[in-house]
Amino acid sequence: MSVFPSRPTTGAEIRAMDKAHVFHSWSAQDEIAPVPVKSASGAVFTDYEGNDYLDFASQLVYTNLGHQHPRLVSAIKDQADRLVTVAPAFANDARSQLAAMIAAVAPGDLNHVFFTNGGAEANENAVRMARVHTGRRKVMSMYRSYHGSTSTAISMTGDPRRWANEPSDSSVVHFFGPYDYRSPFYSSSPQEESDRALEQLEQQIILEGAGTIAAIIMETVVGTNGILVPPPGYLAGVREICDRYGIVYIADEVMAGFGRTGQWFAVDNWDVTPDLISFAKGVNSGYVPLGGVVISDAIRETFAHRAFPGGLTYSGHPLACAVGVESLRVMEDDGVLERVRDLGERVVRPFVEDLAQRHPVVGAVRGVGLFWAIELVRDRESREPLVPFNAAGEANAPMVEFAAACKVRGLWPFMHFNRVHVAPPLVISEEELVRGLQITDEALGLLDQYVK
Amino acid sequence: MSVFPSRPTTGAEIRAMDKAHVFHSWSAQDEIAPVPVKSASGAVFTDYEGNDYLDFASQLVYTNLGHQHPRLVSAIKDQADRLVTVAPAFANDARSQLAAMIAAVAPGDLNHVFFTNGGAEANENAVRMARVHTGRRKVMSMYRSYHGSTSTAISMTGDPRRWANEPSDSSVVHFFGPYDYRSPFYSSSPQEESDRALEQLEQQIILEGAGTIAAIIMETVVGTNGILVPPPGYLAGVREICDRYGIVYIADEVMAGFGRTGQWFAVDNWDVTPDLISFAKGVNSGYVPLGGVVISDAIRETFAHRAFPGGLTYSGHPLACAVGVESLRVMEDDGVLERVRDLGERVVRPFVEDLAQRHPVVGAVRGVGLFWAIELVRDRESREPLVPFNAAGEANAPMVEFAAACKVRGLWPFMHFNRVHVAPPLVISEEELVRGLQITDEALGLLDQYVK
Ligand SMILES: Cc1ncc(COP(=O)(O)O)c(C=O)c1O
Ligand SMILES: Cc1ncc(COP(=O)(O)O)c(C=O)c1O
Repeated sequence: MSVFPSRPTTGAEIRAMDKAHVFHSWSAQDEIAPVPVKSASGAVFTDYEGNDYLDFASQLVYTNLGHQHPRLVSAIKDQADRLVTVAPAFANDARSQLAAMIAAVAPGDLNHVFFTNGGAEANENAVRMARVHTGRRKVMSMYRSYHGSTSTAISMTGDPRRWANEPSDSSVVHFFGPYDYRSPFYSSSPQEESDRALEQLEQQIILEGAGTIAAIIMETVVGTNGILVPPPGYLAGVREICDRYGIVYIADEVMAGFGRTGQWFAVDNWDVTPDLISFAKGVNSGYVPLGGVVISDAIRETFAHRAFPGGLTYSGHPLACAVGVESLRVMEDDGVLERVRDLGERVVRPFVEDLAQRHPVVGAVRGVGLFWAIELVRDRESREPLVPFNAAGEANAPMVEFAAACKVRGLWPFMHFNRVHVAPPLVISEEELVRGLQITDEALGLLDQYVK
Repeated sequence: MSVFPSRPTTGAEIRAMDKAHVFHSWSAQDEIAPVPVKSASGAVFTDYEGNDYLDFASQLVYTNLGHQHPRLVSAIKDQADRLVTVAPAFANDARSQLAAMIAAVAPGDLNHVFFTNGGAEANENAVRMARVHTGRRKVMSMYRSYHGSTSTAISMTGDPRRWANEPSDSSVVHFFGPYDYRSPFYSSSPQEESDRALEQLEQQIILEGAGTIAAIIMETVVGTNGILVPPPGYLAGVREICDRYGIVYIADEVMAGFGRTGQWFAVDNWDVTPDLISFAKGVNSGYVPLGGVVISDAIRETFAHRAFPGGLTYSGHPLACAVGVESLRVMEDDGVLERVRDLGERVVRPFVEDLAQRHPVVGAVRGVGLFWAIELVRDRESREPLVPFNAAGEANAPMVEFAAACKVRGLWPFMHFNRVHVAPPLVISEEELVRGLQITDEALGLLDQYVK
């Protein structure tokens, strides 16, 4: 007789067991009703009632190569048969190979890789490296950003998820990044936005004490907080400022890296080389938890004869790395990056620009690759958001209505505040992509009534 | 033509690629020479020169069911075919089942599970829960402890790995735990050690301001920092103190949980119920990164209608959970807990107690289950450690010599400071266990010369 329950087999059983025993991220536990997922393939997943959903969220923007990709599933099974795990202090072929592959496509002299289990740990370790490397402690990060939920990562986060965790790492300072549509700098063009953002950043560095600042961390393209694509010259300007003051430039590409923007790394879109790049998600489509930091020669040199003061039990896990190796190979073999650039410019851009023309509720659209935002407003003149910042309950009703309208039509949308994001698996078929955009179009139609 | 290197196939190739591109935990990168591991099975792993090593470290004390356990490998492959991954906001059968299984064996009303990727994140989230639940911020943790390397976890850590990371989470205070052999309380018996440790802890709580303290976190059996088994009444006393002052009791069982001490949870050895238990490692033998927090009904209730302010992309990863399910089943089906208790008391205890008799360099031995420490001294009278606290280089030479002597004899030892730990996979055969202890015996023989 086992003391253990057996595996639940119906949707109702799974729901009941989940409710009784699983504690969920970022949620009030009695106010959620998680949908049990039965199976999935490519850009589609299926619940226990047999409903198919086209996944425009790539789960949490991580299944870049879609669900159950046959080559990735095989990579897991092969590595499981060979050698599932070894500790970080040993060497392992899959880990060495993935590090070498990442170094091969990373910009400049970013030739070394420290592996973690996910994005938060990647950022924690990037900051640790910057602090030891510079001998400074302070870190500057953007408002409207997400960097993870461990203490330093959540402290760097510039969105409401930080609030209930304060104070945590007290050596973090936030700054305003560029945001054309709601410029914090009263600018009237992307170029002006870029110039003023850089000017304010440099002023803030001087006022904080340049010699106290170890690192500036920024999402290359801000993800969850709005798919904010940097204006011309901004990233190069940040690079220049970091060089001027001896500050480490950390690019958080946990969401934007590995194909999402149609490049290996999002910085490649602007030919900029940070000192450290943090990654996770797309590196192996989340098939096995994996993240990490790509490290410049200079920062690696700091730890040549001085111990790096950080680590984790599963750093460079062979099973995770083996799926990473196969993911990068699939991206190369199938021309995934080219495909993403093509679908983004040829299919998504014209479609969402047309939505902006036709739906008064659409205030702005922006994006790159398969990474787009549709920003919703009550009034195009004032740009008042359709729902208030960080809205919940009644105040958020229009967004809930939008989500329901999508789901009933078979689309699983990604939503955040007053925005709808388009971030499907990069392997989505063109036909699926268009269908998802058409459903988005229909659901937006229901929201036009809220426009003043 | 691929831009990528192919998989290295020889030990030399793996070493070279590792050296060029892999950045290792806790290490000076130019001063290490990681051994490439080619294959592994049960308690043994094999390098590319064909050398077999009996693994007395269970890698980093996590492969509780050994290497390449056929049932765990099958569980990975089956789940990979069914559904590799879904986001935390969905429900999933493997995740629900594992949570229910953990709840079934967890003590008291610890009925809910929040899943993470590893131990550091587990502790970060346990502390987060305690802070929100109590509305207090401060956390008390032990000297001589390890809790992980993300900011709050490393701040709670009471060993030298914290030093280069300070200051991080400024709301952590350290206290002295019991340590019979080097009593911080000048005690002369385990009972006195327990009483005085509790008295000092309570005094420190009062002096810190009981109303400011959210949680006390402690490893139930201190792992890396010495296999410090709590003396009689200590854990029950901590439970009582926590109750008296409304403090959350967090048991870190990342290393001690899931069979290592011959129980599901190490607290079961003393019939104590904490409010939160953090776990990782043994839950699925590290086959896929997984950790988590087991949560009491009362703390779960705090988040019934209030959002838990934490999360991570891979919380409750189906592949990781599926291996967890199978791990717990194997432990039950094969009577692993009973076996661990038997081997610990019948084989290890008499053997190491005999070592302590025969080798002047052995100052003390202690342990439970398959979790033992042999503490080495220069002088049994003064108890001067064989090597100084946190020794490196020349000062650490005797320990390096010991390790080399083990390795040449086919044993991979776990060492920390002036101690040798015995922490093999729980599936080790009795014959292997004895052989490993015999090699330990031989290698200790080389150290007796250092005794004054
Ligand atoms: C930009 C960015 N950084 C960091 C993280 C944190 O990653 P993880 O959830 O794997 O800890 C995320 C997660 O969504 C992210 O989008
Ligand atoms: C007691 C204890 N807590 C926490 C951790 C951290 O776990 P991880 O390395 O998975 O972050 C460890 C790792 O050895 C540990 O032994």
